[in-house]
Amino acid sequence: MELFRELMQIVGPDNVSADAAVRERFGRTTAPHGTTPLGVVYPTTREQVQQIVRIAARFSVPLFPVSRGKNWGYGDACAPRDGNVIVDLSRMNRIIEINAALAYAVIEPGVSQGQLKDHIDREGLPLMFDATGAGPDASIVGNAIERGSGHTPYGDHFATSCNYEVVLPDGSLMQTGFGAYPGAQAQHVYKWGIGPTLDGLFSQSNFGIVTRMTLWLMPKPESFAMFIVALRTRDSVGPFFEVIRRLRMAGTVRSTLHCFNRGRLLAAATRFPWDRASGRQALEVENTELYRELCDRYALPEWAATGSLSGTRGEVKAAARAIRSVLGTVPGLERVVVVSERTLSLGQQIARLLTPVAPGLSFIKRLESVQLGMALLKGHPSYHSLKGAHWRARTQPSQTGDPIDSQSGLAWICPILPMTAAAVQEVSALAEAAFHEYGFEYQATITAINERALIAVLSISFDHASADERERAQRCQSLLLDKLLDRGYVPYRGPASVLQLVWPRAPEYWQFLSSLKRHVDPAGVVAPGRYLPG
Amino acid sequence: MELFRELMQIVGPDNVSADAAVRERFGRTTAPHGTTPLGVVYPTTREQVQQIVRIAARFSVPLFPVSRGKNWGYGDACAPRDGNVIVDLSRMNRIIEINAALAYAVIEPGVSQGQLKDHIDREGLPLMFDATGAGPDASIVGNAIERGSGHTPYGDHFATSCNYEVVLPDGSLMQTGFGAYPGAQAQHVYKWGIGPTLDGLFSQSNFGIVTRMTLWLMPKPESFAMFIVALRTRDSVGPFFEVIRRLRMAGTVRSTLHCFNRGRLLAAATRFPWDRASGRQALEVENTELYRELCDRYALPEWAATGSLSGTRGEVKAAARAIRSVLGTVPGLERVVVVSERTLSLGQQIARLLTPVAPGLSFIKRLESVQLGMALLKGHPSYHSLKGAHWRARTQPSQTGDPIDSQSGLAWICPILPMTAAAVQEVSALAEAAFHEYGFEYQATITAINERALIAVLSISFDHASADERERAQRCQSLLLDKLLDRGYVPYRGPASVLQLVWPRAPEYWQFLSSLKRHVDPAGVVAPGRYLPG
Repeated sequence: MELFRELMQIVGPDNVSADAAVRERFGRTTAPHGTTPLGVVYPTTREQVQQIVRIAARFSVPLFPVSRGKNWGYGDACAPRDGNVIVDLSRMNRIIEINAALAYAVIEPGVSQGQLKDHIDREGLPLMFDATGAGPDASIVGNAIERGSGHTPYGDHFATSCNYEVVLPDGSLMQTGFGAYPGAQAQHVYKWGIGPTLDGLFSQSNFGIVTRMTLWLMPKPESFAMFIVALRTRDSVGPFFEVIRRLRMAGTVRSTLHCFNRGRLLAAATRFPWDRASGRQALEVENTELYRELCDRYALPEWAATGSLSGTRGEVKAAARAIRSVLGTVPGLERVVVVSERTLSLGQQIARLLTPVAPGLSFIKRLESVQLGMALLKGHPSYHSLKGAHWRARTQPSQTGDPIDSQSGLAWICPILPMTAAAVQEVSALAEAAFHEYGFEYQATITAINERALIAVLSISFDHASADERERAQRCQSLLLDKLLDRGYVPYRGPASVLQLVWPRAPEYWQFLSSLKRHVDPAGVVAPGRYLPG
Repeated sequence: MELFRELMQIVGPDNVSADAAVRERFGRTTAPHGTTPLGVVYPTTREQVQQIVRIAARFSVPLFPVSRGKNWGYGDACAPRDGNVIVDLSRMNRIIEINAALAYAVIEPGVSQGQLKDHIDREGLPLMFDATGAGPDASIVGNAIERGSGHTPYGDHFATSCNYEVVLPDGSLMQTGFGAYPGAQAQHVYKWGIGPTLDGLFSQSNFGIVTRMTLWLMPKPESFAMFIVALRTRDSVGPFFEVIRRLRMAGTVRSTLHCFNRGRLLAAATRFPWDRASGRQALEVENTELYRELCDRYALPEWAATGSLSGTRGEVKAAARAIRSVLGTVPGLERVVVVSERTLSLGQQIARLLTPVAPGLSFIKRLESVQLGMALLKGHPSYHSLKGAHWRARTQPSQTGDPIDSQSGLAWICPILPMTAAAVQEVSALAEAAFHEYGFEYQATITAINERALIAVLSISFDHASADERERAQRCQSLLLDKLLDRGYVPYRGPASVLQLVWPRAPEYWQFLSSLKRHVDPAGVVAPGRYLPG
């Protein structure tokens, strides 16, 4: 095909493929349904991306850019429709600059979480960054322009990145913020620039292909502690977040905080007991005894939350005191444990401290799990955090934990809620009913993303090898999403299947954006149907 | 004129004026040169704004929206060109909602800082908001869409506002973020929404008229303290900000922090001694002895900085300890004083504490000045903070302190710097040389707006009644701006006279925006020339 011959001239023959095997590999997905691309091209420079865009326009072939393609639960590397050429940016993986004093890194989309971590370690830099739970292989840039979230005070990845370099649909190059000005001294340290500020237009969008950005890092704190909260009763999660809101607003808790329900904790601890249950109903509905047995074995509370504190030793101590005192008022509170790095190194103390949180686990298991949890809170990406993604898979997870390899099905719905007990309880009840209606275990992670808002990640975990489960997952996702939208809970992110239900709810907003899109990309070259209708 | 007759039919005859006196009043400015409008219209509802936009398009008359028109130093209420109809939104001044639990207010553009403060006090709400130094009469919405800054942890007003209601140039209405979805539960608590996020497009822009927004408030802290830092030597400001960067990155200091040079402190303390100096040169150049005498009289250090700490009593104590210890390493440090609210109430202690900072002031004066400073850090707008704006005016300031009334000239240049000693010293040296070249006292306020960036507000204070001073101020502003741009220091904000020098420095960025503008506003109805060329 002439298109691929021209692409080969730009990037070299090894960096283009339209092989059936490659096309099939890129068509794999954790979502109920995927799409198959026309082929894949792997640029290594922004100039190549510019040329690819111009060629695609000439051939009227749509492009679908992916950073490293690990967008699990939200559509993976699949374009909204068949027949796109995937622009895989994983070979654009340069760490252009790290400034230790101002604490930022300039990186390309192919830079993975593990790569940046290794680089920082190798150079002995006194820095950390905010990692997601998507493991070492996931892209940092991809997550930031998807507006994903992590685990530290820099948990809002869109807010803590700036200076986007973008290839526009006409093939021209643009930089946002002060990066637009050659030699601008503040381009890496200030997001908005002067005049209309455009980072937002290029996030969750198809207005261009982001080929570089500045990511803000954090100096390693003098003192660091992790806190773990276990809640004994289901209803306590609402009041818990009322208290967290006060602690976040007061600045006592500044890290992104995650709260996991029992179903989510169980999926992280083990996998679905296919030998003892059919999976046609949620385990907690089909076999309550077995479910209770498993929860007891892993000593799972109804909800468990993790967050972190950092500062001087005196500041961390004062914050720990404040947290203990305020959380003590939450009804159904089982235990608050604050684990400092120092504490963690003293194995005996740990055993004593953690027994009340997870008495059923062996000491080694508990220590390992806390250490890994703390690592993520400190910005160390880990394959461990992907463990929960394989719940209903019948295939053994691979070493990298890529859920696609184990045919794990993941359909995530992620509404934003105001941080109130009423909203948490309403969304949780709606989600549990929908999950049970379609025969899935109710799994939820509720994240305090700022001082007053929560992201509820409602995870449908299904067996992707089963057509029946794929179908049920798809229907469950659509039904729950519609119910949530009816009640005013809008997701913050999603694949085309989610957006299709979102668009009709705000016609003016999407008409305005569609009109801009037609103006900027009249030929529809960049990712048609990605976030925007059309 | 038919245009005004139609406008009167929409808003009523009392809410339209094309009188010479009114046009002249709106043409007044603190900038070297102003423009004269065709007339003024005062809508009271968004529907009226929509109709005004449609009428203006029919008559091909450009509109220039102002919230309350107090954009001193950056062009006031003046359109870039003569002949606009000012859309004065000051009568759209409803506080639509305040949510005490989630700590936000939904407000219209006419709501002033004083009005919101009074409302919160009257209702006895346990809340505060971040005020600018522009006094009680300035608009909150206007400052937020100009991306202005304040004094608390919510000092970035663009970052802490969301859910903008916008009248587009075609007269249609749009809401950003989740506000686009009727009944969206998280519309007031989460900024980005889903899909491309558009707040940035409507800030510092002419893509629409913002008629409502959500502003995030803060719960009143359990404990609050102000810290004041006095620096003895000129060169110490660079190392000072190296330390502040560490304190901000560590989260010890979370408030916006302001650092004033001696010239700026002097302008806040008194006015230009016209009886003893000509003003043709900077006072510190023309009459060094007089200058030293004045600085001694008010006991002014070379630089003074103020910031705040909040949290539990234990947290504030721990932070104060950390600050004292780290600031102790700054060469040329004169004194760090941490004043808690409790301390402040004990007059005697104050006298003792503050004597080393400002020994020359009477006790009463010092107490008053600290109390007012602390009020602003706690979000209480005050006429007092406008005092420094009248430096070279020969007319006595009015009670509201509006610098236009006293014919005060203000031309501000506000580059963003990375928070490093080198950048602070370079910008300060460039600015001082330019100010002195054109015969003005060097006045600077340097603000830590986030963990790694500074805004330097370089204030040319001149006598607006003097044609010679207006001319020199204009030339000084242009010359300094060009020098700063040559060195990569780009301003974060400005009137058309500033933007004209900025546009040629980033042609791709502004071409992209101009192209969007032509698409969204083909008739050029909304504020042509405002931030965008054309």
